[in-house]
Amino acid sequence: MERRGANQPRVGGYNQAVILDQIRRAGGLSRVELAAATGLSAQTVSNISQRLLDAGIIEEAGRTSGTAGGPGKPRTTLRLVGSSRHAVGVHLDPSVLTIVLLAIDGTVVASHRRPTPSANAPTRTMRLITREIEKLLDASGVERDSVVGVGIAAPGPIDAERGVIVDPPNLGGWHRVPLRDAVAEATGLPVVLDKDVTAAAVAERWVDAAAAAQSFAFLYMGTGLGMGLMLGDDVVRGGSGNAGEIGHIVTDPQGPVCSCGMRGCIAVSCTPASLVAEAEDLGILPATRVGSDPRTIDDAFTALVKLAGRGHVGALGVLERAAERIARALAVVCNLLDVDRVIIGGPAWSRLAPWFERQVPEVLSGLLVARGLHHVEIVGTSLGEDVGAIGAACLVLDEALTPRPTSLLVG
Amino acid sequence: MERRGANQPRVGGYNQAVILDQIRRAGGLSRVELAAATGLSAQTVSNISQRLLDAGIIEEAGRTSGTAGGPGKPRTTLRLVGSSRHAVGVHLDPSVLTIVLLAIDGTVVASHRRPTPSANAPTRTMRLITREIEKLLDASGVERDSVVGVGIAAPGPIDAERGVIVDPPNLGGWHRVPLRDAVAEATGLPVVLDKDVTAAAVAERWVDAAAAAQSFAFLYMGTGLGMGLMLGDDVVRGGSGNAGEIGHIVTDPQGPVCSCGMRGCIAVSCTPASLVAEAEDLGILPATRVGSDPRTIDDAFTALVKLAGRGHVGALGVLERAAERIARALAVVCNLLDVDRVIIGGPAWSRLAPWFERQVPEVLSGLLVARGLHHVEIVGTSLGEDVGAIGAACLVLDEALTPRPTSLLVG
Ligand SMILES: [Zn+2]
Ligand SMILES: [Zn+2]
Repeated sequence: MERRGANQPRVGGYNQAVILDQIRRAGGLSRVELAAATGLSAQTVSNISQRLLDAGIIEEAGRTSGTAGGPGKPRTTLRLVGSSRHAVGVHLDPSVLTIVLLAIDGTVVASHRRPTPSANAPTRTMRLITREIEKLLDASGVERDSVVGVGIAAPGPIDAERGVIVDPPNLGGWHRVPLRDAVAEATGLPVVLDKDVTAAAVAERWVDAAAAAQSFAFLYMGTGLGMGLMLGDDVVRGGSGNAGEIGHIVTDPQGPVCSCGMRGCIAVSCTPASLVAEAEDLGILPATRVGSDPRTIDDAFTALVKLAGRGHVGALGVLERAAERIARALAVVCNLLDVDRVIIGGPAWSRLAPWFERQVPEVLSGLLVARGLHHVEIVGTSLGEDVGAIGAACLVLDEALTPRPTSLLVG
Repeated sequence: MERRGANQPRVGGYNQAVILDQIRRAGGLSRVELAAATGLSAQTVSNISQRLLDAGIIEEAGRTSGTAGGPGKPRTTLRLVGSSRHAVGVHLDPSVLTIVLLAIDGTVVASHRRPTPSANAPTRTMRLITREIEKLLDASGVERDSVVGVGIAAPGPIDAERGVIVDPPNLGGWHRVPLRDAVAEATGLPVVLDKDVTAAAVAERWVDAAAAAQSFAFLYMGTGLGMGLMLGDDVVRGGSGNAGEIGHIVTDPQGPVCSCGMRGCIAVSCTPASLVAEAEDLGILPATRVGSDPRTIDDAFTALVKLAGRGHVGALGVLERAAERIARALAVVCNLLDVDRVIIGGPAWSRLAPWFERQVPEVLSGLLVARGLHHVEIVGTSLGEDVGAIGAACLVLDEALTPRPTSLLVG
């Protein structure tokens, strides 16, 4: 992904993305409203609109009279043509592979999930990704020409520049796998690769206009834990595209030993695998841990949550302690960045929400240095378990809608 | 401080600040070079230049022939008139008060320091600040009309909107003190208040063109510890202006108990007061702790560092353990934000640098998730102990140089 240089004013090409963004978020806007909303001149709005109309990305959709029924000549509303462009989003989680087809207006046209092949099988997984993309496109019936590209959201660390998955702790056997170019070659489509948490944060901004106006942290709870960050209107990728690694925040000094040399990092005390291990050690779950197969752990995790749901005191204790640790980790991030809200999502979240939704905000609010000055809202994602895949597709649309020499969409 | 709204393209008034910034950083530029560097049209550059010439902020400074001695008509170099505008910067640290007078070209015209009156005396401290500002202005001989305002850098939490110091842990007796308005009333000058760490980060960007092109974290080591963040070209202030609170990052599970309920937060294990306490407990320093008087602690801290300098094994051990804890805290920030560099400064840093400069980078590099993909450079500030005060003055110049209805500088 191209990064804007420091001190470069956002002029020229950037404006087209701003205009499309405004039209998309409002559902439709007149040229006059666009000029007011963006601060761009009437001439600039007119030129860019014409370019987008010619490309078939927007259409003129009826006329309204002047502001609030007042005088003035009728205005033509411009709106997106949803079916004009699509993007494929792929979320590679160590236990589940999610693929969505997203229209340019944000509609999920199709989506499906497959278990991720055994973590040690990058080649098999790459083949599966390619095959599932083709199946999804075939089944959806959208025109191939309308698909501007594929976005892949993957666990870090990644080599963002080269499109390579480096060596994610939860994807054993993946070492410097050039996933981006492999999928591009197999599908013939342009592909972008980004971190799963970055994609999730982009998805939240894309779908939620309110979220877009605020800074937020997205806590992703899957096989591992990660964080996507949106500060102002910019997603935080970091110098190498690897921002969001929060696994080694210590919140339980009596916790398990971590590879970093500390005890009680959230990577070893708040993941589904850690909670299952804790429950097994306490005799709450039968000690059946066999290696680290993600699906075995996932089933045991579901069993633990079910026990808590039935009021099992030991199971409830495991979840409550985890909620406190998560709140302490969030406090580190919120105290550092003073964000307006925290959004939580991911496959582990869906199961933990009933317990975490009450306890995490309670513990967190007592730990904020700026409490009384600044309320941090905590919400679950509205995008469910597809958030990473939807975000991956949004990455492609973001990339495509920002005109530059390498643009996927319009020159 | 005004915040740019989300999605607002940086157009119009913003361009004047961009042009001034380019002129300042380059030392001088022609109109043609300005257009090339900013991407603005020749007409826009010409209009803004004329406005700045009329206001006496820039001047025409001789002519050069075309690029690299080649053909083309001679170009007039535009450069800042350093003496045309000044700002006062005040850094209120619990143990020392630093005041600087900064010219618009970044020159420190005058600076001096005074011990901060006993922490429990906000009224006395406010009077001292006002008196010292007047003395500095009188002694410097600059025209009063050239002083566009006063910037104050203070420990958080602050109420940024109201210009109020809320209740900093290291300033006992300060509870919701309206410092901004008090100083404005007493001096008759516009005043801005910001966090010390934010000011320090702004100072680094202001003086160092290289730093400006990179994301960085500024670790401030004074009576307390804090962090200023510059991501892309934006300083991170957070929703309430209180970003940068890192005190409760846990890096020593066996460390002292903290008010937050954990053990070994860096606020209780890495500050000068913590290191002095540790040295006293180990019998390295005489147990003379009397309350928490900042100057007594500061003297004991100096004695500890001197012992280490003479090779005292116990004292060296205290500093080495502190360096490891600081490195672990920096790892949390660097893994979260994937910044390009860490700058360290503040009064405690000046004394710890000989030990920390070697050890902190070494420990940190082993803890980075993106190691091998991204090198994080660690450097000491080049601005010395005045960094907070210089930053406070930069806040005023930043504010003044960005034209808007409330501009302090030009309409
Ligand atoms: Zn760890
Ligand atoms: Zn603490």
